[in-house]
Parts: sequence; C-alpha cells; structure tokens
Amino acid sequence: MAVRFGLLGAGRIGKVHAKAVASNADAQLVAVADASEKAAKDLARAYGAEVRSIDEIEKAKDIDAVVICTPTDTHADLIERFAKAGKAIFCEKPIDLDVKRVRKCLATVEKAGATLMVGFNRRFDPHFAAVRKAIDDGVIGTVEMVTITSRDPGAPPIDYIKRSGGIFRDMTIHDFDMARFLLGEEPVTVSAHAAVLVDKKIGEAGDYDSVSVILSTGTGKQAIISNSRRATYGYDQRIEVHGSKGMVAAENQRPVSIEIAGSQGYTRPPLHDFFMTRYTQAYANEIAAFIAAMASGKKASPDGRDGLLALALADAALTSATTGKTVRVKDAG
Amino acid sequence: MAVRFGLLGAGRIGKVHAKAVASNADAQLVAVADASEKAAKDLARAYGAEVRSIDEIEKAKDIDAVVICTPTDTHADLIERFAKAGKAIFCEKPIDLDVKRVRKCLATVEKAGATLMVGFNRRFDPHFAAVRKAIDDGVIGTVEMVTITSRDPGAPPIDYIKRSGGIFRDMTIHDFDMARFLLGEEPVTVSAHAAVLVDKKIGEAGDYDSVSVILSTGTGKQAIISNSRRATYGYDQRIEVHGSKGMVAAENQRPVSIEIAGSQGYTRPPLHDFFMTRYTQAYANEIAAFIAAMASGKKASPDGRDGLLALALADAALTSATTGKTVRVKDAG
Amino acid sequence: MAVRFGLLGAGRIGKVHAKAVASNADAQLVAVADASEKAAKDLARAYGAEVRSIDEIEKAKDIDAVVICTPTDTHADLIERFAKAGKAIFCEKPIDLDVKRVRKCLATVEKAGATLMVGFNRRFDPHFAAVRKAIDDGVIGTVEMVTITSRDPGAPPIDYIKRSGGIFRDMTIHDFDMARFLLGEEPVTVSAHAAVLVDKKIGEAGDYDSVSVILSTGTGKQAIISNSRRATYGYDQRIEVHGSKGMVAAENQRPVSIEIAGSQGYTRPPLHDFFMTRYTQAYANEIAAFIAAMASGKKASPDGRDGLLALALADAALTSATTGKTVRVKDAG
Amino acid sequence: MAVRFGLLGAGRIGKVHAKAVASNADAQLVAVADASEKAAKDLARAYGAEVRSIDEIEKAKDIDAVVICTPTDTHADLIERFAKAGKAIFCEKPIDLDVKRVRKCLATVEKAGATLMVGFNRRFDPHFAAVRKAIDDGVIGTVEMVTITSRDPGAPPIDYIKRSGGIFRDMTIHDFDMARFLLGEEPVTVSAHAAVLVDKKIGEAGDYDSVSVILSTGTGKQAIISNSRRATYGYDQRIEVHGSKGMVAAENQRPVSIEIAGSQGYTRPPLHDFFMTRYTQAYANEIAAFIAAMASGKKASPDGRDGLLALALADAALTSATTGKTVRVKDAG
Repeated sequence: MAVRFGLLGAGRIGKVHAKAVASNADAQLVAVADASEKAAKDLARAYGAEVRSIDEIEKAKDIDAVVICTPTDTHADLIERFAKAGKAIFCEKPIDLDVKRVRKCLATVEKAGATLMVGFNRRFDPHFAAVRKAIDDGVIGTVEMVTITSRDPGAPPIDYIKRSGGIFRDMTIHDFDMARFLLGEEPVTVSAHAAVLVDKKIGEAGDYDSVSVILSTGTGKQAIISNSRRATYGYDQRIEVHGSKGMVAAENQRPVSIEIAGSQGYTRPPLHDFFMTRYTQAYANEIAAFIAAMASGKKASPDGRDGLLALALADAALTSATTGKTVRVKDAG
Repeated sequence: MAVRFGLLGAGRIGKVHAKAVASNADAQLVAVADASEKAAKDLARAYGAEVRSIDEIEKAKDIDAVVICTPTDTHADLIERFAKAGKAIFCEKPIDLDVKRVRKCLATVEKAGATLMVGFNRRFDPHFAAVRKAIDDGVIGTVEMVTITSRDPGAPPIDYIKRSGGIFRDMTIHDFDMARFLLGEEPVTVSAHAAVLVDKKIGEAGDYDSVSVILSTGTGKQAIISNSRRATYGYDQRIEVHGSKGMVAAENQRPVSIEIAGSQGYTRPPLHDFFMTRYTQAYANEIAAFIAAMASGKKASPDGRDGLLALALADAALTSATTGKTVRVKDAG
Repeated sequence: MAVRFGLLGAGRIGKVHAKAVASNADAQLVAVADASEKAAKDLARAYGAEVRSIDEIEKAKDIDAVVICTPTDTHADLIERFAKAGKAIFCEKPIDLDVKRVRKCLATVEKAGATLMVGFNRRFDPHFAAVRKAIDDGVIGTVEMVTITSRDPGAPPIDYIKRSGGIFRDMTIHDFDMARFLLGEEPVTVSAHAAVLVDKKIGEAGDYDSVSVILSTGTGKQAIISNSRRATYGYDQRIEVHGSKGMVAAENQRPVSIEIAGSQGYTRPPLHDFFMTRYTQAYANEIAAFIAAMASGKKASPDGRDGLLALALADAALTSATTGKTVRVKDAG
Repeated sequence: MAVRFGLLGAGRIGKVHAKAVASNADAQLVAVADASEKAAKDLARAYGAEVRSIDEIEKAKDIDAVVICTPTDTHADLIERFAKAGKAIFCEKPIDLDVKRVRKCLATVEKAGATLMVGFNRRFDPHFAAVRKAIDDGVIGTVEMVTITSRDPGAPPIDYIKRSGGIFRDMTIHDFDMARFLLGEEPVTVSAHAAVLVDKKIGEAGDYDSVSVILSTGTGKQAIISNSRRATYGYDQRIEVHGSKGMVAAENQRPVSIEIAGSQGYTRPPLHDFFMTRYTQAYANEIAAFIAAMASGKKASPDGRDGLLALALADAALTSATTGKTVRVKDAG
C-alpha cells in the first residue's frame, strides 16, 4: 500500500518534495500545510492533495509520514511532535543550529521509536552515489584522502546569512556529511581557515564566505573541503576520493554538454547555476529512498545521528577557524 | 485550455509519449487504443485515461490530437484517417517506408489542412538543440561541414531488420534528418558505402550493418554520417558542425559521469545503452513542442515534408551504395 | 657506427630533419646542399656539417644516406640518382604528383636495391602510433570503421595551391596514408565530394578547400576523411578507429593544457596552429625510425609503395569528386 | 657571448641540466665535476666538455656560472664558495634542510653580490606557467583560493626518506613554492594534518606519507595542498586557482593522449610515471630562464629567498602537524 504523506511547508523546497512524493508510485500526497494559505492551496491543488493545518496532519489517521520543509527554527519542535504522533519523518537539514537542541530532539525521537531521515540530498546524487558505490566495490582499495570542492554561484542575501548559523553550519555542513559518507570513518579532528573575500557585508554579519577545512579520522584518513560563496562559472560541486588502489572522482554537471571552438579556444557552457537544477535527481532519489525504507522496514539513512555529527563538525570547524587550533570533535565515535 | 489527446499504440514508445502527455500541464491524456486490450488498459489506468477503439477516438469530440505509435505499416493510413477527422497528429517516424505512399499521405494531410508533426526526437535533445542554437546565434559563422556519428549498442533482432526497410530507412534516417536540421540547406547529392561487418545474418536478410554516407548541398556544404549496428561502449551519438568562424559539437551522454583512475589508467563508465534512456528528455521535449505549437497556432516542426525528405535521402543512399554512383536526391528543394 | 647523412634542401622542413639527424646518437650530419648558399651554410654551421653540392654528396664515400627536402618536382629525379649511387634515401612526400612518374621511379629504386623511406610523418606521432599499437594489441578487435578529421588552421598561399597538385594530393594524401595505416587492408573504392567554401581564389586556381571522402576495402571496412583548409581553433588532427570490440581515438593536441572558467563557461586554449609544432615529435621519431631501420637491416617503412598507393587514392578521389562516381583504385592490392 | 658553465654533480638531475645547457644557443658547457670520475667523464664527453675538479671550476676564468646538482648537504657550502668566487649560481632545491643554515648562506650570497637561482622547476612547466600568466593577465580577477594536488607514483626508498628532511621539506616544499607563486602574497599561517597511510616503514623512519595543508595569507587568501606518496595512476600534479572573476586550472599530463572505449567504458592511459618525464620541458625552461636572466642583467627568479620561504613553510607545517595548532610562519613578509 502506498505511503500517505503530509507536507509541512509549501515553499521552494516543499514544492520539490511534493512533486517527488506525488510522482512516486508507492506514495501519495494527502495533505499540505503552510502558514500561507495560498501557497498551501496552490501546491495541494497541483497534486490533488488537501490543505490541512499542522495540528490536523499530526492527528490524521490517513497520514503515515511527514516531510518537514518549514523554517529551520521549527524543525526540532516539529520532529518531536510528529515522532510522538507516530509518524515517520523526513526533515530538511538541519535539525537545529544548536547541537544541544539536536541531541535533545534525537533523544525524543529515539524514545518514541520514530523513523527520522535527514535531507542530506547529495548522498543521492547519481554521480556521488556512483563514487560511493565504487568505494564499496573495492575499486580504489582503502580510502585514504577525500577532496571536496563546493562553491556556490553567488552568496545568498545578507538576511539569510544572518539566520543561517554561519557558513560552516549552512553550507559546509553538506560537505561534512559528504566527507563522513565517503571516508567510512568518523573524523575526529578538524582544522579550518576562514576569511571574507567575496563580500564585506558577510563579514559585517559575523560570517565568512571562503573557507578551507581539513578533517582527520582516527586512523589518519584525511578530507579536505574548499568552500566559496562565489563561483562565476556556476555551481561547482566536485568530489574526489583517493585510495590505496586508485582514485574515483565525480565531475561537475552542466545543463547542456556542448563545446564551441573558435579563435579564442574551446568553450563549454557554464555549470548549473542553481542547486535545485543541479540536484534535481538527488531530491527525487532521496524521497524515493525514504519511501523504500518505510516499505522495506529498513532503517532510513541518513538519520538524526548523521545530522548531529555533521553539525558537530561544523561547530568544531568554527572553533578551529576562530582559535587557530586543531579541534577535537565532540560526539564523534 | 489543455489539449486533449488520444494515444494509438500502447507499446514501448507509446508509454513514453503517454507519460509526456500526462505530465504536461497544457495537455490531457483522454484515451488509449491498442490491439492488446491489456496493454491499453494498463497504460490508460496509469494516467487516468479511458480505453477506446481507434474508431471511437477518430469520432470523439473530446479529443483534439492523436499520437500515433502503432506499427510503421499503419502510419500512413492512420494519418490520413485522423487528418480527415480534423485531429492534430503527432506520428512516430517513419510515415511509411515507401516514398510514394508518403507523398500521397502528405497530399491528403495538406488537403485536409491538418497539423502533422513527425517524431524526429533527436532535434529535441537538449544537447543537439543547443548545437542548433549556437548555429542560429551565428557563433560558428556559415555552416560548412557536418559530421554525425551514430552507432547502436547492438543490432536489433533479425525479424525487426527484415521489416525495417533497411538500415538507411530505419537508422540512418535519423541522421539524414539531423543533417538537414544542421546544414540549413537541402542535400542534393548522396554517396554511400555499405557493408556487413557486424552480423552475417543481417546480410542474409538483405541489409547492411555498417555504412558511411556523404551528403552535399547545392552550395557544396557537406555532411558525413557514420553508422554501425555495434558499439560495445554504448549508444554513440555525436554531432559536430564546422563553420567559417568555428566549430560546435555535442558529446556523448552517460548515465553517471564519474572517473576511476588506477594502474590501468583513467576510466569513465560506458555510455547510455538504450535509446530511451539516452533520449528521455528529447521525447518529453518533442511532445511539449507539439503541444506548444498547437497552443500558439504556429506550425509544428518537423512536419510531414521533413519525414518525406529524410526518406528520400535514405532511398538515394541505398541506390548509391548499390550502384557505386553519387545519387541526385529526388524531392529535394 | 653512426649513419652519415647528407641533407638536400635547407628550407623549413630541411631544418627540422637536420636537427633530428644531428641530435640522434646513431647518426651524423656530414653535409648540407641547397640552391641558396647562405641557407646551406647557416644550417651546416649550426650542426657542424659541411656545405657540399648535390653532385658531391652523390659521389661522397663518407655519406651513407640522404634526406631529400628539395621542392617536390625534383624528388623523383633525386631518388633515382641517389638510389643508383647506393645511398639510403629518406624523401619527403610526395615522390611525385604523377603516379606514372612515381611508378617509374620506384622501378629504378627496386632495380638498384636501394632503401627508400617516404616522409609520412604522422605515422610517427606518439598519439597516432599509440592508436595503431592498440589495434595491433587486439584491444578493439577487428577494425571496421576509421574516421579521420584533418583541418588546417588556414589555407596556404594561392601560389602554393597552384603547384600543390590539388588538395587531394597535397593535404588529403596524409589522411589516405593514415587510413591505410589504420585499416590494415587496402582501400579499393573511393567516393569523394569536394567544394570551395573557404576561399573563392582556391576555386579559381582549380582546386577545392573542403572535401569529404569515403574509402572501402575489399571486405567492406570503411574510412571517412573530412578535410578543410580552415579551422579557426587551430590544427585539427583527430583519428578514431572503431572495431568489433571497441574504439580507440587520438584527440587533438594543444601547446598548453589549462582551462579557464568564468561567466562565459569553461575555455581551453586553441590547438597548435602550425604543423611543425603539432608534429615536432613525429618528425624526430620518423628520422629515428629511418636510422634504426638502417642499423637493424630491417625494411624502412613507410616505403615507396606506400607513397604510390596514397597518391593513387588521391587520384581516385579527384576522379570521384569530378565524375560523381565511386572510383575503383588502380594499383591497389 | 655565450654563458660558460661548470656543472657540479653528474647524477640523474645533473644530466638533465647538462643537456639543457648544451642545447641552449646562449650557453656553453665547459666543465663537469663529480666525485665519480667515470660519471664526470661520460657526461663531459657527451657534450664536449672537460672534466675538472670543483676547486678548478671555482678558480676557472673561463667559467661564468655553475649548476649545483650535488647532494643536498653540500649545497650551502658550495653556494657560499661560488658566490665568493664571483660565479652566478643555479642550485637545485633545497639550499639546506636547516632554515638557519639557509639564512647564513643567503647572507653570504648577498654580501658577495652573487646571482643565485633555486631550482623550483615547476614554475617553468608550460602549463603551470600558463596558469600564472592567466592570473597576471587578470583573467580570473583577484586570487582567492588555490588548490594543489601533488601525489607521487610511489614512495622513494626508505634510505632516501631518512635523509630527506621529511615529506614537508622534501615533497610538499614544491607545493609551498607553487602556492607562493600563485597566491601573490606570503602565507602567514599554516595548518597541517599528516599520517602514515601508504607504508608503515615510512612511519618507522619518523616521517609521514599522506598530508593535507592549509595556508592563509594576511588578507585571508587560502591555499590547500594534498600530498600522497602513492598514486597508482601516475604522477598526479594539478593546480587550480579560484579568483573573483573565475578559475584557472592545469590538468594532468600523460605520455600519449588516446582513449579506448569498450564494454568496460572509456579509458585513457595512466599519467607520466616519473617526475623527469613529466617535467622535461620545465627543466629545460628553468635553465633557459637562468641564462636569459644573466644575459639581460635581470634578477634570476626564484632566488634564495624563495628557497628560504618555502623551507620556512615546510617547518611550520611540520610543527602544525605535530602540535595540532595553526602555526604562524617565521620569516614571512
């Protein structure tokens, strides 16, 4: 029987997940809730769902699972409510910007025995997933060093920056999760350098826009992360994993793969300029994985602990960048 | 108002088009017809459509357009019937394997004033469309020479080969259309070499499996086509256009773009191994273009004449390959 | 003992070969002859050689081999003289523009039992040689189809065009040799299309600047050649060989392999813009192969017959382009 | 007039530099010294030079410049001797493994007013030099972040490791110089992680084989370095510079650039497997630059201070890796 869904939050990412649910043969979008009635209505109508309040969805007997796409500061509360209500939960990252709040929330989820999956969508990108598969297949031997390049086409609005928890918790957190996903061991130490090179206003808002991070695991495996809030050539998303037998890398993606040659040389078009077009398939695949986990009774992954550990790495990186010390990661292991 | 569709033929390609129609906001799949009632039912149910006979669809007042995905030898008859019935028609290529039958069919369509679009899906591949756009934008100056490489992962069953009209009419016809699409002038002469290098049974069936073709236009522009029924590395589909100011090329597509390096070198995965995964987006885009043409009142393209001219090139190529002469194309210009 | 060389012709290509001889540990440049005494002197001095007349070189006992880099119309005569004089001969292509003259010349060489190697330098390009090695190693199975793209950065002066024997004998001849080198069978039929698309003056001089050719062997293997006297992006030299088990290709070469990304996309620099920088290594390698053949007593390759057969293909292509017929190659097999 | 050279050390790298000097039209190799008389003789004979002792070269009036290719522990002494003797000096890196000794040596050079160039050959690699040129041309705007990947095909012998000064001073030092070359500002802080992942014996010798480093300049520009003593796919040498307007990158180099496609995918050959074949052109270019500097009277670069600063970065990285702190670089600025 199809998994019946309630969607909380009909904004940009809510629409993406609504479509993923609606077009999945094993799922059904039953209800949509949003603070804006119009947004909820428009989205509900597009997929033959009803508009309901969060309270109604919480109590609904015809809803098995929720997708939480509301603002970050509501995530932990909603997770706790729906865990207690016996719903399976898919929540956009992050659970919360405060690691203590996350820990408390996860304790509640555990006590309730609820299913919680966290939206680290990049694990489901077909190219990155293929990198992980190559590692699992033993193609490159034992993983030794990971390099992650992640640059945004441009900085978000300063208002967003202010509420974001800072670049490490907002942007690098995806790369911390990817590093954990690829290293196969928990990073235990973190060194980070951070600067404002793109936009002074970001510095004035107390944040950085250009950061470099090294993570090391207990056995000495290393991951390097390079982040910038600027990339004139598009959304730069590359990973490379070096192992004892070889290397595997996922290259950048562009909307069209043509090449034009002329007197100035050979030119290929810029990369995707938006995370939603770059990760279209990843978003669809992560919802499909959530549904498949529910159908099979297997554990949904990445789960709350993955959310916690990525956040702990972000906190450690921030401490490292500000103190000039390599920081030991709390909660690791 | 949404364009209301009847679908004729619920086979492999029928399913692709049904999905394209159903997921298009400006279209509605009303009815499905198929010789196999089960096939029709399954497909109709999947998209909330009804099962109807071809006769019923022909007479239906709630159907504006049909998509013809039935066997090739029914195409011309169905086009004529539905043209007379006042429906807009999207028909899979080819209209017919006999150029005379095609001409008669097109005369009927013209007399009826019907809209007919022919399914040369590759024009709608985002990469090939971007090549054409680069030409239209003047990026490479005047087009001079086109190179089309088109190799199938493997030969189709001999039974298919026997009914196919031969490699020029079945496989190269796509490349003839692509050459016309890119040259911007009608080819007027054709030279073709053809051989059986892949499978002797193909030769025994009276066909070839490996062909090379040169087309020239009246002003001397040239297109080269290389076809093989075998490509161990996947579905090899490349185009390159050389002009007075430069060159534009569309490279091959693969399901995942990773690279693995080891002692044997650097390896990327094989290409798509099936035309339907390779041209997924193209199929969706061509139906969208058909719907958009109907909505805007503009001419649908490629049309019946495009179908005719590609077939005329195929006939000329076959004559060239068997006579050892460069053949002047009938119907051109 | 080192092979002692006389060099005939101290022009552009003469300088290249002089350097190759001088820097080869198994060879010694003894003498240089040139109609211009200054050119001969300058080149001789640079490598510690003497200036001598052609007559003196012919009679010299301290010279084992000659490199003929004089104008094309002197090649056949010089080959005959030095064959009779008992010298080993490396001659720049072509032996002559007239196939009858070539046949007569080769008969003289054969009678004299002389060693004659013809300068089809591209066989010695490391990348193209690696393609051939992959074929020889069985990596792609049986060769089926060859595609050769060969475009010059720009057309030579009209005066050169007039003396060149036409594009097929001057430019495509390299590709005919490459096709023979890669097909592993003699082409027996040729179809060619030719046009003037680059420069009307080339047409007024009785030549073409844009040609497409198909060659077929007795078993049906095919080679496609695409030539243009114009390529704004540099010297475009690619080969691709398709076989029963796979494909091998050699890509273009550029002086520096960097990539610049910006808002317009990703740009790599143009290709080499000159055949001498593109084929620097090939020129050095072919002289080394000639010396090695002499040292080992093995047959030098490519030899006079290779020169003859490439010219025969050029003649056939010209006939095909002008008559509109597929032409059977004389002298093949 | 040609610059007259004495060469100290006729080993592996000595031979490379001897050839570079001998084949440079503006230079002359006069004498070769080596502890092994046979080695000195063989090399001297190959290029028409004399064998002389170091003392003789020091006093020789017919020698303007020396190339020092002797073991590392002799470099500083020899530099001082030849600086006092009024010779221009090209010395292989490093000047010494001890930063204090380097400082003393440079003071002597300065007092003597001698020319000293240090052999950071990679600055002269055509591809890396083109990256720098793109920066200088303003193509990528202001430099923000540099990524350097440098992996050896395999670890050197343990005996070499023991004398090497450790991976930071032996291997990463090239990348420290490259980072300085590309950042355009002095790095002032260093964070490094280091581990033994390739070979336990390297750890037993007190060294690391896998390191990651972040450098930051005073304005916050960052460089990331990834080093491994293992790369099964060849000598992995890449740089990427990200700036305010775009990015420029130099890709890896391989001996032949072919690609083979088959059922397993598309494979390109491994990279160069040896630094001498990878950097052939760089070695020739650096000697040419030294000679050109002498001819023009301009300062030779990179100079002794460049050697000192790269070593200071190596020392700082080692301290960082062992203390877990970001280290402020001495001597910087």
